[in-house]
Amino acid sequence: MAVHPGHLKAAAKRRLPSAVFDFLEGGSNDEVTLKRNLADFEALRLNQRVFDHVASRNLRTTLFGQRASMPVALAPIGMGGVFHPRAEIHAARAAASFGVPYCLSTLSSCSIEEVAAEVGAPFMFQLYMFKDRAINAALLQRADQAHCPALVLNVDTAVQGRRNRDLDNGLTIPLRLRPQHIVRILQKPRWLLNWLLKKPTLGNLAPYSPDGSDLATVSAWAEPRFKGAVTAADLEWIRHTWPRKLVVKGILDAEDAKLAAKLGADAIVISNHGGRQLDGASSTASMLPGIREAVGDDVELILDSGVRSGFDVLKALGLGAHGCLIGRAFVYGLAAGGQRGVAAALELIAQELDEAMTLTGTADATPCRVVSCCVEL
Amino acid sequence: MAVHPGHLKAAAKRRLPSAVFDFLEGGSNDEVTLKRNLADFEALRLNQRVFDHVASRNLRTTLFGQRASMPVALAPIGMGGVFHPRAEIHAARAAASFGVPYCLSTLSSCSIEEVAAEVGAPFMFQLYMFKDRAINAALLQRADQAHCPALVLNVDTAVQGRRNRDLDNGLTIPLRLRPQHIVRILQKPRWLLNWLLKKPTLGNLAPYSPDGSDLATVSAWAEPRFKGAVTAADLEWIRHTWPRKLVVKGILDAEDAKLAAKLGADAIVISNHGGRQLDGASSTASMLPGIREAVGDDVELILDSGVRSGFDVLKALGLGAHGCLIGRAFVYGLAAGGQRGVAAALELIAQELDEAMTLTGTADATPCRVVSCCVEL
Amino acid sequence: MAVHPGHLKAAAKRRLPSAVFDFLEGGSNDEVTLKRNLADFEALRLNQRVFDHVASRNLRTTLFGQRASMPVALAPIGMGGVFHPRAEIHAARAAASFGVPYCLSTLSSCSIEEVAAEVGAPFMFQLYMFKDRAINAALLQRADQAHCPALVLNVDTAVQGRRNRDLDNGLTIPLRLRPQHIVRILQKPRWLLNWLLKKPTLGNLAPYSPDGSDLATVSAWAEPRFKGAVTAADLEWIRHTWPRKLVVKGILDAEDAKLAAKLGADAIVISNHGGRQLDGASSTASMLPGIREAVGDDVELILDSGVRSGFDVLKALGLGAHGCLIGRAFVYGLAAGGQRGVAAALELIAQELDEAMTLTGTADATPCRVVSCCVEL
Amino acid sequence: MAVHPGHLKAAAKRRLPSAVFDFLEGGSNDEVTLKRNLADFEALRLNQRVFDHVASRNLRTTLFGQRASMPVALAPIGMGGVFHPRAEIHAARAAASFGVPYCLSTLSSCSIEEVAAEVGAPFMFQLYMFKDRAINAALLQRADQAHCPALVLNVDTAVQGRRNRDLDNGLTIPLRLRPQHIVRILQKPRWLLNWLLKKPTLGNLAPYSPDGSDLATVSAWAEPRFKGAVTAADLEWIRHTWPRKLVVKGILDAEDAKLAAKLGADAIVISNHGGRQLDGASSTASMLPGIREAVGDDVELILDSGVRSGFDVLKALGLGAHGCLIGRAFVYGLAAGGQRGVAAALELIAQELDEAMTLTGTADATPCRVVSCCVEL
Ligand SMILES: Cc1cc2nc3c(=O)[nH]c(=O)nc-3n(C[C@H](O)[C@H](O)[C@H](O)COP(=O)(O)O)c2cc1C
Ligand SMILES: Cc1cc2nc3c(=O)[nH]c(=O)nc-3n(C[C@H](O)[C@H](O)[C@H](O)COP(=O)(O)O)c2cc1C
Ligand SMILES: Cc1cc2nc3c(=O)[nH]c(=O)nc-3n(C[C@H](O)[C@H](O)[C@H](O)COP(=O)(O)O)c2cc1C
Ligand SMILES: Cc1cc2nc3c(=O)[nH]c(=O)nc-3n(C[C@H](O)[C@H](O)[C@H](O)COP(=O)(O)O)c2cc1C
Repeated sequence: MAVHPGHLKAAAKRRLPSAVFDFLEGGSNDEVTLKRNLADFEALRLNQRVFDHVASRNLRTTLFGQRASMPVALAPIGMGGVFHPRAEIHAARAAASFGVPYCLSTLSSCSIEEVAAEVGAPFMFQLYMFKDRAINAALLQRADQAHCPALVLNVDTAVQGRRNRDLDNGLTIPLRLRPQHIVRILQKPRWLLNWLLKKPTLGNLAPYSPDGSDLATVSAWAEPRFKGAVTAADLEWIRHTWPRKLVVKGILDAEDAKLAAKLGADAIVISNHGGRQLDGASSTASMLPGIREAVGDDVELILDSGVRSGFDVLKALGLGAHGCLIGRAFVYGLAAGGQRGVAAALELIAQELDEAMTLTGTADATPCRVVSCCVEL
Repeated sequence: MAVHPGHLKAAAKRRLPSAVFDFLEGGSNDEVTLKRNLADFEALRLNQRVFDHVASRNLRTTLFGQRASMPVALAPIGMGGVFHPRAEIHAARAAASFGVPYCLSTLSSCSIEEVAAEVGAPFMFQLYMFKDRAINAALLQRADQAHCPALVLNVDTAVQGRRNRDLDNGLTIPLRLRPQHIVRILQKPRWLLNWLLKKPTLGNLAPYSPDGSDLATVSAWAEPRFKGAVTAADLEWIRHTWPRKLVVKGILDAEDAKLAAKLGADAIVISNHGGRQLDGASSTASMLPGIREAVGDDVELILDSGVRSGFDVLKALGLGAHGCLIGRAFVYGLAAGGQRGVAAALELIAQELDEAMTLTGTADATPCRVVSCCVEL
Repeated sequence: MAVHPGHLKAAAKRRLPSAVFDFLEGGSNDEVTLKRNLADFEALRLNQRVFDHVASRNLRTTLFGQRASMPVALAPIGMGGVFHPRAEIHAARAAASFGVPYCLSTLSSCSIEEVAAEVGAPFMFQLYMFKDRAINAALLQRADQAHCPALVLNVDTAVQGRRNRDLDNGLTIPLRLRPQHIVRILQKPRWLLNWLLKKPTLGNLAPYSPDGSDLATVSAWAEPRFKGAVTAADLEWIRHTWPRKLVVKGILDAEDAKLAAKLGADAIVISNHGGRQLDGASSTASMLPGIREAVGDDVELILDSGVRSGFDVLKALGLGAHGCLIGRAFVYGLAAGGQRGVAAALELIAQELDEAMTLTGTADATPCRVVSCCVEL
Repeated sequence: MAVHPGHLKAAAKRRLPSAVFDFLEGGSNDEVTLKRNLADFEALRLNQRVFDHVASRNLRTTLFGQRASMPVALAPIGMGGVFHPRAEIHAARAAASFGVPYCLSTLSSCSIEEVAAEVGAPFMFQLYMFKDRAINAALLQRADQAHCPALVLNVDTAVQGRRNRDLDNGLTIPLRLRPQHIVRILQKPRWLLNWLLKKPTLGNLAPYSPDGSDLATVSAWAEPRFKGAVTAADLEWIRHTWPRKLVVKGILDAEDAKLAAKLGADAIVISNHGGRQLDGASSTASMLPGIREAVGDDVELILDSGVRSGFDVLKALGLGAHGCLIGRAFVYGLAAGGQRGVAAALELIAQELDEAMTLTGTADATPCRVVSCCVEL
């Protein structure tokens, strides 16, 4: 269905109302960090090597204690239902059949239970903490009952980034749609029909909120109840409560990374939330080497934000990452064609990664082995 | 009325005749310094921190000896009446209710006395020196009688910058409006009506000039009477004459800053006049750290020129400033909606600053505490 | 027929269906390396010298053991027939009469034997290795019988680069032309007529493939049979088998260059395949000096990829190259006007090189003598 | 007639046929050096100073042994008659009344004698050497008889730069005008009328050529007779022959500058011929400091190429120049309005220079005093 990554993005753009595409594509404020994520990847150079090729490359690795057919996992994406009906089930199935880890967001459209029931493969659960510890405990318990192999604790959302595109499009809580916004939605009748037939909600939070079936109501209920900043004490509590692997997502600073590791994180996701939180923050590609140096070789570091291709994945490995999370790169596929679209996105990334490994003479998709394939600018 | 800063600028553009918008937006000559001011802010990186959040951020600080609800003050803006009727009263009221210092320009449309009478809150007065010391003395006395807590002495206007946009638009002294200029003005009838009903003048200078009610006449009278370059002797005279805080505005060089401090300035505004004077001058963001190092930690340094958002304010603090002056950033709001527009502009900056402090783990809006939040390029 | 290089490119663009022009012009993936090749040449500076002019410049040199009227040779170009009927004969004749080496591709439209018969001047043969050693041996033997003075072994195509433009245009194996592609081809009736009258194939491979007269069939036959990665053992075998000069093409790394030299390469072509293979690889201009330093002064190094003018040729000499291969720079001429077009392209490059040598005071077109004419950025 | 420099350029563009404007504006080949000249000036930073102002700036200086009201002289421009009838007389008069040196080109439209007769003020003469020493001697003698205070020997034209715009426009020797070129000329009837009434020739060379009244004939006669490269021996001969000041124009390298000084040049013009000769050469702004360091403080160095404003003039002084030559910057005025246009161009540059000196606290327009006003990038 797609022969290069640009196709999936273009297809997503064709399918989605422009405001929804903007919600996916955009970053916070002036989108400086969003652009840096991409520019800093582009500026890295891969070493072309010709004689030390191995007959075949090994893309398999272990991420968050799980086997992965390539060093990539799907990042947690909230409000998935605006991109495709039953988004998370589509994405999780594609991930499962491709053999890469999937992470369900607190703000997913389908609930933990639905995904567990429909997908039949393990998935990770990402937690945005609530002020009310009872809710946190309940969510952890549900994730535990769903046998999630890892909990991904988001720590970069002390306050939500101001996304100018969403503000322009009236995508606020509460919604402020104006006539021009409505008109643009009507231009995508297929999307609209899907929406009306299968109105998404926030499946995990619906049980705690007054009108659980309505996305707007649940969002408005949840908004003021998020805890925001995560403290060291919070992390300790979760480490204590959660029985399996613990991943801390949203770190961009060496001190923070060292603290997370000290408090028991099994893996750390280096992220600026895809340029959607602190505008003006550095790219993850530029910060990773310093963090790797600070934490040493034993801590599992995953690079997130700005990964668009298998070439970027190899660059991340070369900078010291164990693997990558991808957000938009798979959501383009999801919006373009549900499970099949996500599968196509993963297939492309794997092919590109394999090509890049072949042409750089990289045998194994692990951080130590490929670090020489990259030259920093 | 506005949900992100771009809205205020766009609204100002809609309201104002294009020549007036250009007068606001433009810089001198090729606008190289104007662009540098913005680019150098954009290039700075903010440190994303996640675990050392404080429960609440303290934005309050002290500027020029006055309490400020955030480290921002409104810069002196001449000819305010071209942006909104009774501009200074609107802006000063918005500043007062938001709790930030306001500075009235020598070239304000409303006079010191009018502002004092209508606003009922202290404001600073900015002085452009005249050749005639009697006028200087009179202006100081009027500012004193209005209980201005600080005098802001402008020193960067030895000669007025050549602003190509104004020259193109016929905004010269005397005016040289051509038919095409008139046509463009007629496209903004609401602005024109306001102008005709409430013809602005230069309120502070009207008393000394032949036909005080006419902006063109007063400007033409004043133009050749400005002193231009301010000498060390001038500064000493003012320090001696003026009883309260003295601020020197328009310094971009470490030696000049040291001299100003030595001669008794209570605070120094690092400024290139918003890129409207010496084209080719460095950005203030690039010069501030060197000046801070030269003058030491005790001198109050305020960064001016290029500040457009709360993110820029935090970057300025991180470079060593005690706070910022904002020019265009508030005038967009003023032109868009008078007092309410200025209030909206201030509100946005405060929100952005708070968000930026939250996501960088910055507790206090003071120079020393946040210097680690910035990495120079 | 052409007065500056832009003309040839424009003429090629006018003649060719857009998909064919894209096939020529494009690079792999996001074309980052393609752009780097050009940008890094542009950033180099030539030393303007005025008093040490020699009465005449000597452009003659030796490349791959052959005399060359300037330090330039024509790179191997596959599928030449899509640019001009009997492309290789046109190009080889132009090269012969201009006095520069020509290299025939494994994937040429005309076969080794046809070119040998029609051109009557020596040419080099470029080998893409096949998995089946018998085919390799057969090709070497044919090249030997044609008295090719040098074999150019390509080593940078372990896997073929993914060229997004070709994918967009349906130029895949097998072809996937859609109606819109056909329409664009019909806009170039002259090209179409040539195609239909003189349907190109892959002349060298036709004998081994089922329907040798059909380009699509031969390509599909060949595609899975290429060996891809070339190993040190392969190189040793070829060094052993091939009786005359051996050139290794497609090296961008100092270690690889040292190995190639050690295993008996007579010359090494520093290349990233014109930005058509590993996207993200460095430009050849940026890598050459390091490779020169690593291999010492005695190894013949030829720079390939990104050379568009005689100025670029001089820059390459200044960086330490013995000469350059040009790909697109001559194919523009070929597409624009067959043999005459290639001659025009060579003429322009020679003139530019002579001008550049004159204005930099460079007497001889050899690496050692002109190295001071360049300042790296 | 003009209020900022952009106006003069725009007016020139309106008046001239596009091919003639291109001849003025363009550079050689890809115009890389042309763009560098401008970009490198823009990147320089001027030091804003506020307290050390002097009451008035002294712009007067000495250039080539002549008094100059500002550190600027008019560069030699060939074919002036294509820009304005009797171009050199207009330009020389404007220069004389403004008090800056004027330099007549070998290729001027009006002859040495005409200019001497009509202008009544001293001017310099620029020599392009001929192969035939008799012509050189004759030209020197004519310049001597016209009491030219200085001879400017051009040394950067060993071969003429290939100017793609001229090639595109058919401005070659011989002319190759095609219908589309003619159509564009007819769009500027005023220019055409001037041309027909006052057909320009090359006044200085007409006496030696068959049909002296025809520009095309004289050009075609002269073209193959230029000597091109100037050798040290040539320079010695001229130094010996020419009785007054000798200026060498077209040096961009420290060794060349030292040799020129050693052989008796009274002043050296650092130039890349306005980006019209060696494309890929460095900007003059980037090379000047190194040359100044190499030759010491006593050699008079004049920066040429890329100067567009008084700000650029101050930057040049700050880099170590004694003054500047301006080419295009005055020809815009010439094309826009003859003598009045050149006067306007000079007036603007003087005003800008005065403003820039004022705002940088620069008292004197000499290299030593203002070197601190610039910070290199
Ligand atoms: C539409 C969208 C929704 C997201 N929702 C969440 C979320 O619910 N939880 C979370 O931790 N991160 C969320 N993220 C951030 C992603 O997990 C990931 O960090 C980011 O997309 C990575 O950047 P990339 O899109 O450049 O790959 C979201 C990102 C996008 C684009
Ligand atoms: C329209 C306009 C009028 C100004 N008038 C004055 C003035 O009267 N006195 C003064 O000291 N500065 C004046 N300035 C400069 C501002 O005080 C301030 O230094 C500048 O606007 C800061 O740059 P910014 O606009 O990028 O924030 C003016 C600036 C503008 C844009
Ligand atoms: C259309 C096209 C076909 C090519 N075919 C071959 C080929 O068959 N064998 C090969 O070794 N290189 C091939 N190359 C690469 C060229 O030999 C050469 O390395 C490249 O064109 C150099 O870059 P340049 O085009 O920027 O000069 C091809 C390049 C192009 C543009
Ligand atoms: C139209 C034109 C004609 C020129 N003719 C001559 C000439 O006859 N002799 C010469 O020495 N330089 C000539 N030059 C170069 C100028 O003297 C000068 O070096 C150049 O214009 C400086 O660059 P600028 O235009 O950026 O100021 C010419 C330049 C232009 C633009």
